[in-house]
This record gives sequence, structure tokens and C-alpha cells, in this order.
Amino acid sequence: MKIKVIVPIIAKTFEDEVRRELASLATPGVEYDVESLDYGPASIESEYDEAIAVPDILNKVYKAEKEGFDGVILDCFGDPGVRAAREISNLVVFGGFEPPMLIAAGLGDKIAIVTVLQEVIPMINGLISKAGLKDRVAAVRHVDIPVLELIDIQKLKDALFEQSVEAIKQNHAQVIVLGCTGMMGVSNELMERLAEAGYDIPVVDAFAASLRLTEATISLGLRPSKLTYMPVRAKERKWWGE
Amino acid sequence: MKIKVIVPIIAKTFEDEVRRELASLATPGVEYDVESLDYGPASIESEYDEAIAVPDILNKVYKAEKEGFDGVILDCFGDPGVRAAREISNLVVFGGFEPPMLIAAGLGDKIAIVTVLQEVIPMINGLISKAGLKDRVAAVRHVDIPVLELIDIQKLKDALFEQSVEAIKQNHAQVIVLGCTGMMGVSNELMERLAEAGYDIPVVDAFAASLRLTEATISLGLRPSKLTYMPVRAKERKWWGE
Amino acid sequence: MKIKVIVPIIAKTFEDEVRRELASLATPGVEYDVESLDYGPASIESEYDEAIAVPDILNKVYKAEKEGFDGVILDCFGDPGVRAAREISNLVVFGGFEPPMLIAAGLGDKIAIVTVLQEVIPMINGLISKAGLKDRVAAVRHVDIPVLELIDIQKLKDALFEQSVEAIKQNHAQVIVLGCTGMMGVSNELMERLAEAGYDIPVVDAFAASLRLTEATISLGLRPSKLTYMPVRAKERKWWGE
Amino acid sequence: MKIKVIVPIIAKTFEDEVRRELASLATPGVEYDVESLDYGPASIESEYDEAIAVPDILNKVYKAEKEGFDGVILDCFGDPGVRAAREISNLVVFGGFEPPMLIAAGLGDKIAIVTVLQEVIPMINGLISKAGLKDRVAAVRHVDIPVLELIDIQKLKDALFEQSVEAIKQNHAQVIVLGCTGMMGVSNELMERLAEAGYDIPVVDAFAASLRLTEATISLGLRPSKLTYMPVRAKERKWWGE
Amino acid sequence: MKIKVIVPIIAKTFEDEVRRELASLATPGVEYDVESLDYGPASIESEYDEAIAVPDILNKVYKAEKEGFDGVILDCFGDPGVRAAREISNLVVFGGFEPPMLIAAGLGDKIAIVTVLQEVIPMINGLISKAGLKDRVAAVRHVDIPVLELIDIQKLKDALFEQSVEAIKQNHAQVIVLGCTGMMGVSNELMERLAEAGYDIPVVDAFAASLRLTEATISLGLRPSKLTYMPVRAKERKWWGE
Amino acid sequence: MKIKVIVPIIAKTFEDEVRRELASLATPGVEYDVESLDYGPASIESEYDEAIAVPDILNKVYKAEKEGFDGVILDCFGDPGVRAAREISNLVVFGGFEPPMLIAAGLGDKIAIVTVLQEVIPMINGLISKAGLKDRVAAVRHVDIPVLELIDIQKLKDALFEQSVEAIKQNHAQVIVLGCTGMMGVSNELMERLAEAGYDIPVVDAFAASLRLTEATISLGLRPSKLTYMPVRAKERKWWGE
Repeated sequence: MKIKVIVPIIAKTFEDEVRRELASLATPGVEYDVESLDYGPASIESEYDEAIAVPDILNKVYKAEKEGFDGVILDCFGDPGVRAAREISNLVVFGGFEPPMLIAAGLGDKIAIVTVLQEVIPMINGLISKAGLKDRVAAVRHVDIPVLELIDIQKLKDALFEQSVEAIKQNHAQVIVLGCTGMMGVSNELMERLAEAGYDIPVVDAFAASLRLTEATISLGLRPSKLTYMPVRAKERKWWGE
Repeated sequence: MKIKVIVPIIAKTFEDEVRRELASLATPGVEYDVESLDYGPASIESEYDEAIAVPDILNKVYKAEKEGFDGVILDCFGDPGVRAAREISNLVVFGGFEPPMLIAAGLGDKIAIVTVLQEVIPMINGLISKAGLKDRVAAVRHVDIPVLELIDIQKLKDALFEQSVEAIKQNHAQVIVLGCTGMMGVSNELMERLAEAGYDIPVVDAFAASLRLTEATISLGLRPSKLTYMPVRAKERKWWGE
Repeated sequence: MKIKVIVPIIAKTFEDEVRRELASLATPGVEYDVESLDYGPASIESEYDEAIAVPDILNKVYKAEKEGFDGVILDCFGDPGVRAAREISNLVVFGGFEPPMLIAAGLGDKIAIVTVLQEVIPMINGLISKAGLKDRVAAVRHVDIPVLELIDIQKLKDALFEQSVEAIKQNHAQVIVLGCTGMMGVSNELMERLAEAGYDIPVVDAFAASLRLTEATISLGLRPSKLTYMPVRAKERKWWGE
Repeated sequence: MKIKVIVPIIAKTFEDEVRRELASLATPGVEYDVESLDYGPASIESEYDEAIAVPDILNKVYKAEKEGFDGVILDCFGDPGVRAAREISNLVVFGGFEPPMLIAAGLGDKIAIVTVLQEVIPMINGLISKAGLKDRVAAVRHVDIPVLELIDIQKLKDALFEQSVEAIKQNHAQVIVLGCTGMMGVSNELMERLAEAGYDIPVVDAFAASLRLTEATISLGLRPSKLTYMPVRAKERKWWGE
Repeated sequence: MKIKVIVPIIAKTFEDEVRRELASLATPGVEYDVESLDYGPASIESEYDEAIAVPDILNKVYKAEKEGFDGVILDCFGDPGVRAAREISNLVVFGGFEPPMLIAAGLGDKIAIVTVLQEVIPMINGLISKAGLKDRVAAVRHVDIPVLELIDIQKLKDALFEQSVEAIKQNHAQVIVLGCTGMMGVSNELMERLAEAGYDIPVVDAFAASLRLTEATISLGLRPSKLTYMPVRAKERKWWGE
Repeated sequence: MKIKVIVPIIAKTFEDEVRRELASLATPGVEYDVESLDYGPASIESEYDEAIAVPDILNKVYKAEKEGFDGVILDCFGDPGVRAAREISNLVVFGGFEPPMLIAAGLGDKIAIVTVLQEVIPMINGLISKAGLKDRVAAVRHVDIPVLELIDIQKLKDALFEQSVEAIKQNHAQVIVLGCTGMMGVSNELMERLAEAGYDIPVVDAFAASLRLTEATISLGLRPSKLTYMPVRAKERKWWGE
């Protein structure tokens, strides 16, 4: 089994973090590769950022299929280009939103998403609506830290704990989903801290969930439905630089 | 009042049709301009086509604001780039989906959309879900004609009539929305034909509805909410060809 | 184009205000007329008030069609008699609820309605449910001022500002709809005050929205669906005073 | 316990039928009275009919409270004036829609309503939406017989059987609600005929259900919530003939 | 008419309370019987408790049908075994959840349930979802008193009052449903206390509502749908102790 | 990692089939065990069957935790006892419903379930409602074969193909979920047959999906939320045979 992780931004810093994370999560017998974008934004924090990330994401997906990968992970909670990627390939394709949400849905009734910034909440609400998961989501909260500042890990941890406690107390959340794939490697500690505070609930890491769901789906021999994601028609398409 | 119509494809044929349509719909005192894309697909019939159309759409929106336009119409039923365009500008921005749906919602309880091809239906269903309009939509049907073949106007008219009648009989539709902005100039005749067949119901032309809603919104002095479409942050973004 | 505004109450004070507002909103080439009720309540603030307003509203609609009007506006946020009026006429008919809600739906994801009194909220919730707009409404709040006291314009403005800020902060509203057609001529100032407070969002005036949507619908050549609003059967109907 | 049945039409024929039905359903110790309208339509088959029935309904409710009744039944499936009647009185008030729907909801998962005419279906759909019962309703079908022709009892019975079977087969209905209070005295035979055809399911008579729910509610010492149906304010209200 | 009340726990204390309550609610001409379980939990406060109560509940239902009862009440707000009991019998079967919710739905728009403990709220939310009543429920709150401690009646009354007021103020509830059948004989006093505090709203006692709805359904000649609750197939089933 | 599969019926035939299936699906390094019930039904085809299966299921779960298992699979599409099992243990617990539905939700928009018999459809609809997945389910269809006759594998395969094609054509399904864990080992062939018929869509085997989701969840270090499934209180509980 071969899985390609596409980090859909041009900032290479995250690429290394993803490699480290992958090393700790690696399943024996699975081959992984990580690749960032050549064109696109430094981080995805708006519909605009997502829009300009997608063309090069799709280039990388096209290439991944040619290279013989079985699945690709578009490593962003906004699921950028996921549907288009399923149209143009026969691969198992997941972004960072669907997998943690589906895993969370199997662990408790009411899910809270804790994301980075207020401005991405409408985009996340759109994903929730499209996925038909509104009845399961108690709240979408944010830590108010831009993606590229998530590197200040202690600040992130404290803010996540604070927002998770509010989600539990005010919004009656029963499961926490970390709403940015950049919030890597913090879910276990957060889970412990919440348990110590009396809240023994799961905290779902978006990237790890995406990895495991991709592996599970491939191992089940399943691929995205070609009635939902129908193959694209041949036609003239003019790319930049052509 | 100045309104820019962006035809989000590279095929120039539609540009002229839009100009003709605009001429017949023009409101006194409003200035219009029409522009196609330099980069993108020949037509939008998939999530993939939409994805590669959006970057140049956003370029054109950015330019339109600089040129002093009050509103832009992204002339495609898929609402490509609409949300991103509202983030990066202070203009009234509408695509081809929201306006006819909102107009239709004021004319009857149950709406049927008749679009071009089966493969765009999941995309349209996603727009319906995000717009919270599921309870109002009786069906999304298709005429099975690709966008670039809509030019065969008689075939289109017959297929639209047939699908509209099925929508009324089988799906209990009470209002028809033409689900592709390329289906221009056919709504009146369809309305008459349906009335003759005993179905006195409105047929909403997507482009005309978009034009009127854009004009109405501008004249009301309203613009998209900056709490839904928050301004984007400054950051590195690498464009193609840079 | 000829549009009749029916002010569905017997208090003539509002009639003059509506005329003034119309004068400032008038579209060149459109002819307007304003008419109040002969029978009905002094104001509409309950299902009961609405019930006793409707028969004379329908008389006026019947007369308006005979007089050659193209559209009528039933100028109350409760949409009194709107559906019945569409059954008995072939006019474009709008009340004060649907138009601002549809306009608002095109400007942001989450709408808050700020209305006059607590007792009209169940009626408004009923309209929201029937319109299938529950997913778009963040809250229905009230300023606690009876309709006939809206004349104290400064009190109204302050209360609207206060409730709008609460709607934004507590209910995450992104668009404000003024939930009484008597709240005329205050939306622009409210929009400015909210922008100064850091909330750059649209505030939709119900009457102005209704006027523009009526004009747009007429200019599009559309009328309410006769499959939703089927013509009424001839039968004995005994009116008061007969 | 005293219950007043208001037959909200001017045709006196139904009044006698209601008396006969009441006689067969009477609960020992309960006193009943039946009254028709002085002003209004011969039958209710549109939003328009309903609108002109309501003022005199409310007069009768007002009088019933003065006369010492504990509850009133507004005997029409459209629930005409029910909400207003709850505002202006302290009585238990039911129409013909809510009670059979609530009784049916306790008997099976999926309910089909079989009503008189196509034109009342949008009104019934509105009631379903306002009642939040959409998930429970499999279909609203009609026998295509006007209210005043329900007197042809054999035609009614055959049409009800036919539509009920279609509702079961095509719409997967599991409970039938007779969607007009004029369809009296036919539910038992219909239930038997369906059982013989292999469908052992309940058929709910709207008037009988309304009677029993009114009695049950009164005997439980409960009345409509004054937070949903707040008392109306004193103000000028001009009635016809004044 | 003969009605059997099955108190689905092994603690006999509640059995006597139910008899007393029945005596005060008894309808002339109806015969009642009360029976507790031989096997099962001392009280139902979890999905686990419910699971181990159900087999003996079904034994008692089977016996009740043989003994000639017309209806059975499974006297617990969790509706334990209600659906299975409807499969294996031809009786009118109600638990403690559906009846008060349906009665409440006829009395106001927004219902709050006040139950015993936090741990039963997910179970109640499941019942609400299955019943399709989500739009009608404003909140599910709890008094934080275990079932077997409800005997401290003053503590219960105070806690119910406090939670009801919060439900009204914070959750905009308009009707209160007591969310445990063990909260007997307190609804009237609570209704009075709320009215004195300015909230003139109904409080629905679960057991009383269940009794009245059972009686009403039997008197209407209706039974649960055999298309929802299809008869069970003959097959090997091994019971404990066999 | 140790996973126990509880086959929640007394028929031992299925136990061996599950062992064979497990052998073909086994993940290296994971230890599996299979166990049937001592008390309960021969198959689960009704709410009644489920009710009498659950107590012994919970016994087996209790034992499994003591024996050091990390997860248990309650191998039935009805998810029998899943919620109770999560209350009384700290294990990862999945039934046969949630996992295939969540896996399917990641593969296409519209899911059809094809189950065994008409009588289990209401139970499945209840699970869909509780899971908040109504918007994703296009249809629940059945092959009309009892569980214990699934052994006639060719008949099953043909019926599944036929119902899947109907689900695609009539209900617009895009993903098929096999709605009985007894339908083992047929999904691949069905997928191929559908592809040959022009429908290239995934078919999800319930048991296999459950196995992979259980493994994935354990490997992510996650367990069910103790705020959804709160620990049960100590109290008297009388078991059969005590």
C-alpha cells in the first residue's frame, strides 16, 4: 500500500512536521510520501487561500496516480480539492475534515470542532452542511491562532484546553475534533488534561484520523463512488503558463 | 451603477451571447461590462472545471473592484469562486445559483432545477445543502446536453419542456429554475408551453435573476457581510508563472 | 409598472410614513399607490390582529388587480394574507417577511431578525419553518417596543443597535433583518453604527427589500406559481354586512 | 366538562352530521354543543376560504369562553384560527389537524394524509412544517372530491381506499390520517378493507381524534402555553359592520 | 376497557405510588392493574438498565394480552421495550416518553424536558431524534436527583421549579415535560408556582399523559400499525433458565 | 491489539463463517476471538429479537473487558446493545451499523442500505435518525430473505444485485451498504457486477467495515466518550436465574 500526503501549502516547514508525525504513526508495510505545493498560499485560512491552492493540489494528485499510489491525503481541514481529486483519479482521496468527523461520529453523539481562526468557521460550517452532519455538531470554536503560529506549541495546548472545556460546558460537546491539520501531536496530552479535569472524552487528531481512514478504506478494497464523482469530460482547458 | 459580468470560461462564444442578453435586459442608467477568462476550462461541468476556473475569476474580480464596479456576476450556476470573491472585495458578488433560487423561493413552495448533465448534480446538491434550501427543492433533473452543445436551441427547448413536465408530475415541482446560465433566452417560451400544457408556473432564468438581484442589492446599499466573508490575511501566496 | 402598497392596519399615520419612504426609494418609471385598511387592527402584533386584518387586505388586493396594478406589497413582517392573495389574483404579491429574508440569505450565512415584541416571535418562527429557512436563522430577538411606539425613533435606534450587537455576539449573526415594516428609515444609520463597533455587516430594511424584490420579479416577467397558489373555486361565501 | 364544536363554515348540512357523529362518540358526563358560522365560506378549500372564515370563528370562541365552555374544537383540518383562538382565550383549543397527527404519531413511524383536493396540499404542507412533523409524513395525497361532495359516501370510501393503498405501496405509509374533518364515519370500514387487503394499519378520523385529545387535555388540567400564545394587547380594532 | 401498568423495575415502592396515582386519575368504567418486574434493575437510569429491564417487560406484555387487557403502559420515560411490545402483541402500548411529548406538542411550540440525571440525556436525545421531534424541543435539562431519591418530594419540587425557570429564560421553553415517570403528583403545584413567577405554561406529567393517551387511543378503536411493528417470525429463542 | 467478535445469536453456524471471514481479513499482529450467545434468538430480525439478545451480549462484553480485549464488535447491523456496552466498559465497541455507514459516508453522497427483510426497516430507520444521517441515505431496501436463509449464496447475490440496481436507478444511490452482517463475502463480486452494468460504485460489507474501524480507532488511542456513555451507577439489578 502506497499513500501520498499532499501538504497543500508552499511553506515547507509543515512538510517536515508531517514526516515526523508520519514516522510515529506509520503502519508496517505501508509506504508513505510527502509533498508540498509549488504554487499556492503559505497557509489556508480563507476560501481565497483554498481556491488558489487547489489547481496545484490537483496536479499533484494526477502525478500521484501515475506514480502508483493507492491513496492521497490532502492534508488540510478544509478538504481543499477533495471532490475534484476524486473526479480526476481512481484513488482513495481524503482531506482533513471528513475522516476525523466520521471517526468522531463513532465515539459520541455531540462533536465540537476547535479550529484556528474565526474566518474559517463559515467554510467549516459549509463542509458540515454538505456532509449532512449538522445534527452531530455541537459547536465550532476557535483558538484565535493563525496556522503559521501554531508552532508556539504551549500556547496552542493551553488555548485548545480552554476552548475544549468551554465546548463541553457551554455547548454540551462530548467529543473534540481538532479543526486544523496543523494541530499535530497535541491530542493525547489534551485528552489527558481533559480527563484530569473530569471530562473523559476522545480528542480526534485530524491528520492521524485521515491516515487511518485512508488505510482502512484501501485495505477494504473500496474507492470513491463514480456516480458521485463522475469522470471529467475531455475539453479545452488552458493552464497558467501555457 | 456599474456591473461586471465575468463569464468564467475561456470559450469566447458565450461572451457574445451574454452581451446580447444583457442588451435586452439592460436597466436604464446601469453600465455593464462582460469579460471571459484567460485561463480555465472551455466550460464548467465538474468540480474539476470549477477548481481551475476560480483563480482567474478572482483576478478579474480584483480588477473589477479597482475599475470602480459596484457589483460582479460570476456567470455560472455552480457559483464558482463566489465566496472567495466576497472575501477579497467589497463588491456585491453573485453567481448563477443563489439569485434564481432566492427568486424562485418567493414564487412557490417546491422548486425543481433542470440542469445540463448528471455529473453536475452532486455539485448542485452541495450548493443546496450549503444554502440551507433542501426543504424547498423537489428535484434536480438534467437535459443531458453538454454546455457547449446548448447552442442547438430547439433540442434544448424540447428537453427542458420534457424535464419540466416530469418535474411537475413526478416530483410535484411548482417552480422551475434553469440550472445552467448557458440556458439563456428560453425561459419565456418554456413558461408559455407549460401554461398551454396546463401548468401555469414560473420558470426562472439564472442569468436574468442574477442581474436583477445584483441591481436590487446595490440599489439597497447593501454588501456581503464581512462576518461571513472576513477579509483575507496578508501572507505569501505564489501564483503560477511567478 | 404599477405597484400598490397595502398598509394592513387602520392607523393612517403609517400610511404617510410609507409615502415618504416610497418617495425616497422610488424607481423611475414605476407608479406607486398606498392604501390602508377600512377594517382591521390599529397594528399587527398577534395572530389575532393578523386574522382580523386579512379579509380587508384581500378586498384591497382584489381591487388592485382590477385597477391594473402589476404587484402589491402587503406591508407587514407577518406576511398577512400573502398566500391567499396569490390564490385570488395574478399579481406579484409580497409581504414584509419573505423579501428581506431572501435578500439577507444572499448576503451572509446566519441571519438574525430583530422584531418589536416577544409575542410575535412564535408567529415569525412559524414563517421561518414554512419558508424552510431554519438553518439560516441564528436568532429572533425583540426590542420590546409596540408598533405604535416605534415613532420614538431614537429609542428604536438604540434598542436596535443593542439587540443587533447581542445577536452578533451571542447568536453569531452575520446579517440583521429588521423584523417589522414599521422600522423604516433606520437601517443605514444602524449599519454605520455597527461598522463603527467593528461589525461590518448588512442590515436589511423589510419594506425596501420588499419593494425591490417586487420590482425585480415584475421586471423578470414572473408571477407566483399557480401550482402552489391554485385558483379558488366558486362557492357561496358570506361577507360581513351582507 | 363542556366542549363546543365550531364548524367553521356557513353550510348548515355539516352541523347535523357533526351532531350525529358526536352522539355516537359522546363521553358520559361531557356536555357538547355545535355551532356553525354566520359569516364565512360554504367550505374551506383554500387559504382564501380559511382567511374569511377566521374572524367569525374567533367571535364564536370568544362567546364560548363567556358561556363557560372548557374547550373548543375548530372542526377543519386546516386548523383555521387555532393559534389566534389560543391567544384570545384560556380554553383548550384544537383544530382538526394537530390532534389526528399527534395520535397517528403514537401509532406508527410514517404517516400519510389523504385529503380532498390538490389545492389544499400546500396549506397542509405548511401546517406540517410549522408543527415540525416533516420527518414523520410519508405523503399528502388527495381523493379529488370537493368538501361539499363528500356526501357521496361510496365514492369517498372507494377513493380513500385507493389512495391509502397507493400511500402504502408507493410512499411506504404505515398510518393513514383522513385529511378533512368532513370525512366522518368512514375510518372503521376503511381500516377493515385495508386489513383485508393485507395492510393491518390504523386509520385516524380527524374529528374523533380532535374530540378525544380535547377531552384528554381538559381532564389533565392543561391549557395552551401563554408563552406561545401570549395575550393580545388592547388597541383599536375596527370590525365589519361597526 | 382494561389497562395494565407495568412498572419496569424491581423496586416495589414505586408500584404503590403508581396505584395511588391511578386511584386519583381513574376514569369510570376502566379497570386498571399494576405490576412490577421480577427481573431487572432497581431503577432505569442508563441504556444498560433499560437493556436488562426489557426481557421481563416483554414477558409481562405477553401475559397482559393473554389476560385480556386492551392496553399496557410501560411506565418509564425511556420507552423501554415499547417497540418490541408492539411487535409481539395487538395491544395499545405506550411508554412514558411519547405520550407526554405528543400532548405537549399540542400545547405550545417549544418543549423543555426536565429529567433526573445527566446520564439519561443522550438516551432521551435518541428518543427525540427517532420521534422526529427535534424541532420542537428547546432543551433537555436535569434536576440531578437519582430515581430512587425522588421520594424527597420537597427537594424534587424545588429543583424542578429551578430547572423549569432556567428552561424558560435560557432555552425559551414554552411547555415543560417532566422527564421521569417517577416525578408523580408534582405537576400541578409546579404549574402554579411557575404561574406565580409570571410563566403561565403547562407542565405535563408523563404518567398521567400516558394514561390519558392510552385510554383515548383504545376508545378510538386504534392499535399500533402492523406495518411499523410487523409480527415477529417463529424461530428458536433461548431464554434464561431454560 | 485484541478484538473480540460477539455474534449476538445462539445459532453457531454463523460463528464459523465469521471465523473464516476473519481469517481472510486478519491484520498482522492483531489477535481475534469469536463468541456466540448462550441465551437469545437464533437470528435478529425484529426489535423483539434484539431485546432478548442484549442481556447476554452485555455479559460477553463485561467478560471481554476482564479478559483484556481492546475492542469488541457486536456483529449485527442493528447495533444491539452497542450504547449499553459503551456505558459498562472502557472498550472500543462497534456494532454492524455505524462502521459501514461512516465508511460509506466517506465514499459518496447518497447511500442505499440493502437489508434482509421488510420488518427490520423501521429499526434501521431509527438507527439512521439517531445517527443524524438521514440526509445521506437515499433508500433502505430489502432482498426479502430471512437471515438464516442467507446461506443460499447465489440467491442472495442475485437479489442484492437486483436491489442495488433499483437503488441506483430509482433512489439515485451512489454507494451500497449491505444491511446485514450475515451478508458476508459477497461485496466484491457485487461491486464487479455493478461495474459491468455501468455502475462503478463501492459496496460496503458491514462486518469488514466494522473490523477496520475498530482497529483504526484502537490504533488511534481513542475510546467512546464518557460524556455520551456515562458509567452506570451501582444499584440492585436482579438477573435471570439468580
